[in-house]
Amino acid sequence: MMAMSLTGRSTVCRWLAYSGSPILIEELLYKPKHSLIDQSLHARLGVETTNGDGFGIGWYADDPEDGIPAVFRDEGPAWSNRNLRELAAHVRSPMLFGHIRASTGTAVQQTNCHPFRHGRWLWMHNGSIAEFLRVKRDLVLQVEPSLYPYIEGSTDSEVMFFLALSLGLDHDPPAAVERMVDLVERVGRKHDVKYPVQMTVATTDGQQLWAFRYSSEHRSRSLFFSSDVFALRQMQPDNPNLQLVSEESRLIVSEPIVDLEGAWNEVPESSWGIVQAGDDELHPFTPRAA
Amino acid sequence: MMAMSLTGRSTVCRWLAYSGSPILIEELLYKPKHSLIDQSLHARLGVETTNGDGFGIGWYADDPEDGIPAVFRDEGPAWSNRNLRELAAHVRSPMLFGHIRASTGTAVQQTNCHPFRHGRWLWMHNGSIAEFLRVKRDLVLQVEPSLYPYIEGSTDSEVMFFLALSLGLDHDPPAAVERMVDLVERVGRKHDVKYPVQMTVATTDGQQLWAFRYSSEHRSRSLFFSSDVFALRQMQPDNPNLQLVSEESRLIVSEPIVDLEGAWNEVPESSWGIVQAGDDELHPFTPRAA
Amino acid sequence: MMAMSLTGRSTVCRWLAYSGSPILIEELLYKPKHSLIDQSLHARLGVETTNGDGFGIGWYADDPEDGIPAVFRDEGPAWSNRNLRELAAHVRSPMLFGHIRASTGTAVQQTNCHPFRHGRWLWMHNGSIAEFLRVKRDLVLQVEPSLYPYIEGSTDSEVMFFLALSLGLDHDPPAAVERMVDLVERVGRKHDVKYPVQMTVATTDGQQLWAFRYSSEHRSRSLFFSSDVFALRQMQPDNPNLQLVSEESRLIVSEPIVDLEGAWNEVPESSWGIVQAGDDELHPFTPRAA
Amino acid sequence: MMAMSLTGRSTVCRWLAYSGSPILIEELLYKPKHSLIDQSLHARLGVETTNGDGFGIGWYADDPEDGIPAVFRDEGPAWSNRNLRELAAHVRSPMLFGHIRASTGTAVQQTNCHPFRHGRWLWMHNGSIAEFLRVKRDLVLQVEPSLYPYIEGSTDSEVMFFLALSLGLDHDPPAAVERMVDLVERVGRKHDVKYPVQMTVATTDGQQLWAFRYSSEHRSRSLFFSSDVFALRQMQPDNPNLQLVSEESRLIVSEPIVDLEGAWNEVPESSWGIVQAGDDELHPFTPRAA
Repeated sequence: MMAMSLTGRSTVCRWLAYSGSPILIEELLYKPKHSLIDQSLHARLGVETTNGDGFGIGWYADDPEDGIPAVFRDEGPAWSNRNLRELAAHVRSPMLFGHIRASTGTAVQQTNCHPFRHGRWLWMHNGSIAEFLRVKRDLVLQVEPSLYPYIEGSTDSEVMFFLALSLGLDHDPPAAVERMVDLVERVGRKHDVKYPVQMTVATTDGQQLWAFRYSSEHRSRSLFFSSDVFALRQMQPDNPNLQLVSEESRLIVSEPIVDLEGAWNEVPESSWGIVQAGDDELHPFTPRAA
Repeated sequence: MMAMSLTGRSTVCRWLAYSGSPILIEELLYKPKHSLIDQSLHARLGVETTNGDGFGIGWYADDPEDGIPAVFRDEGPAWSNRNLRELAAHVRSPMLFGHIRASTGTAVQQTNCHPFRHGRWLWMHNGSIAEFLRVKRDLVLQVEPSLYPYIEGSTDSEVMFFLALSLGLDHDPPAAVERMVDLVERVGRKHDVKYPVQMTVATTDGQQLWAFRYSSEHRSRSLFFSSDVFALRQMQPDNPNLQLVSEESRLIVSEPIVDLEGAWNEVPESSWGIVQAGDDELHPFTPRAA
Repeated sequence: MMAMSLTGRSTVCRWLAYSGSPILIEELLYKPKHSLIDQSLHARLGVETTNGDGFGIGWYADDPEDGIPAVFRDEGPAWSNRNLRELAAHVRSPMLFGHIRASTGTAVQQTNCHPFRHGRWLWMHNGSIAEFLRVKRDLVLQVEPSLYPYIEGSTDSEVMFFLALSLGLDHDPPAAVERMVDLVERVGRKHDVKYPVQMTVATTDGQQLWAFRYSSEHRSRSLFFSSDVFALRQMQPDNPNLQLVSEESRLIVSEPIVDLEGAWNEVPESSWGIVQAGDDELHPFTPRAA
Repeated sequence: MMAMSLTGRSTVCRWLAYSGSPILIEELLYKPKHSLIDQSLHARLGVETTNGDGFGIGWYADDPEDGIPAVFRDEGPAWSNRNLRELAAHVRSPMLFGHIRASTGTAVQQTNCHPFRHGRWLWMHNGSIAEFLRVKRDLVLQVEPSLYPYIEGSTDSEVMFFLALSLGLDHDPPAAVERMVDLVERVGRKHDVKYPVQMTVATTDGQQLWAFRYSSEHRSRSLFFSSDVFALRQMQPDNPNLQLVSEESRLIVSEPIVDLEGAWNEVPESSWGIVQAGDDELHPFTPRAA
């Protein structure tokens, strides 16, 4: 039987979420120094890795008829994907998710690429469920049976999404994610997994954007949000498009995408935030029983 | 939500199984008139369809160390795949499976391509489990928990394989497949599915080759076996390689691949056969409770 | 050496060009009966073939900054491409090209997919240069040296485009295409090719749209244009989006995409037309010396 | 027009050539520490880069009928390609080429992947022709017209191969490569290119294996050959397959694939070598007029 993991590969995916004034996608994905696409070739922080195992973007139209976001995903590397570059140069969006993947062994295929979508919802994840193959069946059994057939891929990240959907994502996203993490931790511990969850997660319904940082070990992957619109504008001082973004525009990223003192705030360990019209919020994250 | 099925697409996959003298793969896949690769572009019997949603071959080495077959699968069409053609022109095998896929809606991806493999076993299928998304969860729950994590794709065919493995494929293949079909029929009927199973199936452990033809409606997809080695040789009378195959070499196919009177015998409705050293056998197929 | 052509494959690509009111791409590509995407699986007119060797679309943004069109191309079949479907459901355009390919032997790869682009220009083609490999070098030598490095693929269609660019496409498209055809015919005849050119071609700079129907044998592939906006609206009488398209909106297609008496006019043998603001025009096509 | 290069990407491909006792391909590609497949994710020597822009292997059958090697190439990364791993675990060869690509901007597509093949010949390259797009037309014009139609891709490496074929590769490989380099340098200098050639190259007809190290600047990419069979055996002291390889088996690599003192000899600047039955040879490399 073919062993599917390559020794020494780490599992750091990278992602970016934007909410704000409608903007050409390339302004976010390609033009900044140390952009997400550059990161797909070379990472700076944390474990050195290559994110060449697929990518995806999800976006909402500027004038949505039905509120369903578009999803563009491919199993090849982002850095050489010409279709992504074309699309990024011609499509504007007020809400964008971008993700580049480093597989831990699950198949490199489109249905394993983030973001995942269900109805109006998008979901993307960096991290892992520890010992996933050992706990997968127990977790999948907890997915609402009517949702079960919509699971298309084989990743832990998609199972987390469908558990959160089953636990109320549509009504109270922070509570649903706290319940999902509690469930994964309980199942993991039943299987003697010491630290079952490692995650940063972003999810949105097209109106609000939630971000989560948590790990069972309390040593979570990094997560940052842009302190204010000035940070966005400074990403490219000479770019008139960026100077026009509104005061409320925000970026949330797994790694800072430009070197600016004070431009980025780290999301604290074990916390979640919401980006929305009106004031953004930041709260502690505590797994809770369903 | 994106509708994934295209109206009017039928679901006829096609496959070929060979057991006999070691032979260059291209003698079976490319050189015959109306070969499997030609069929991928144009079918003759049954519903007219195009098998462009992926393909796969599985083969055993001539001098196997470990008995594990190789599997080569790709999500693109077989007819334009250069790597398949290269491999077919350079690799010999005494036991070959070939399959070309027409998706009914499940993702077009490598992990959904046949043949599927587990340990020494290969499995391929033409047909479907009716209303699969409605019954999928109930069926997957019946897969042996230790086998569950090895399901990588999202097709009905792979679930049938893992059910058969769970029900004793390794010990008594015909009985295991009869139990699997019984299970699928019982679960389907619980969900008010009239005709739950439609299938021709081939499976092998590298030594023996079993083929099955069955459908709940008793109107199964076509299945043929070569009457004797003369049929194989007549496929290409001028091809010296084919004149050398042994008396016991056999082909089993979903559609005859050459126009020869008397060269092909149809496998009867509701039956299974075995190709092996010594006499081949043909028996009735009857779903049976586990 | 690997033979690359499969016996009996015909060479009919199919294409669609739209100019008019900005419209969701899926209204043109997916929603009509017998749409281009359906045609990729099953053709009705002419030679029965499967267009599964790649596809492409080109479109101009509704509010272009630079007038450069986007191009989205992939080597797989159009019918199963999820990214195409996503994009089509979320992007609007006043000028769209769509093409599905059936390769005659040149590689199935993105750089061989239509439409081709250079600057503001798009180009797509159905047909072939006869005996292309024998005449290719002589033709490529006639491409303007400064344009030569931009040829990325290996098809006859792209060489026709670069010859037309070299011969004045930017200034007088009909004259440039007539010169290009004259050149291909002269070079072909030098190599004893009886009928060097077979083509329907569409090209645009984003403002005007030109279509050509010509073959050396005067037995050209079919080409149709929508007689008036009523034909477009009748494609889907219940679709409110289509009822809003302007009087001047036009479709040009290699095959009618809906069964309506009187909705389609065939472009006459050896002629070219232009779709533009103001009256459209139709003229005879005559190869002419450069 | 889309800019195709990503700032800061270097252009280091990596390759491996093996000649010797027939061996399972995986013994060379996967099993050694710091194997070529590992290198595709992380390089150690020279510029840090990721070789994720396609790969290829070429091999000769153990009992060739026609002496034509097989070529298996794919545009995706090698590290996640399951078909490569399958093939490597089941196919043996006495002569293997393996290559992993980092594109400098030319399309990521199968026809741009090494090794290239013509008849019985294989060719692979690490390096570049400087300012290739400026000199490409002049170089391609020097390819023998009867060979010209066989150029399928768009890389400098394939043009180098076809120039070498045009200049006598079949009769005197070292002389043909010296003439090719002389030609590229003359054309480059005509276009004011200071250092036109950077290369390590391997080529074979299935019987002998030639390797070249040269650059106009005399600062060539690294190249190593295994000092003797003991080095091969020490790659995996516990691997019985490797202990059986013959005294004359040799590896040539762009980077050492295992850390052994004395196991690797660096090919000197501006030289070429030949691996063959009987004594291997090493000679100075001097561009020479055709």
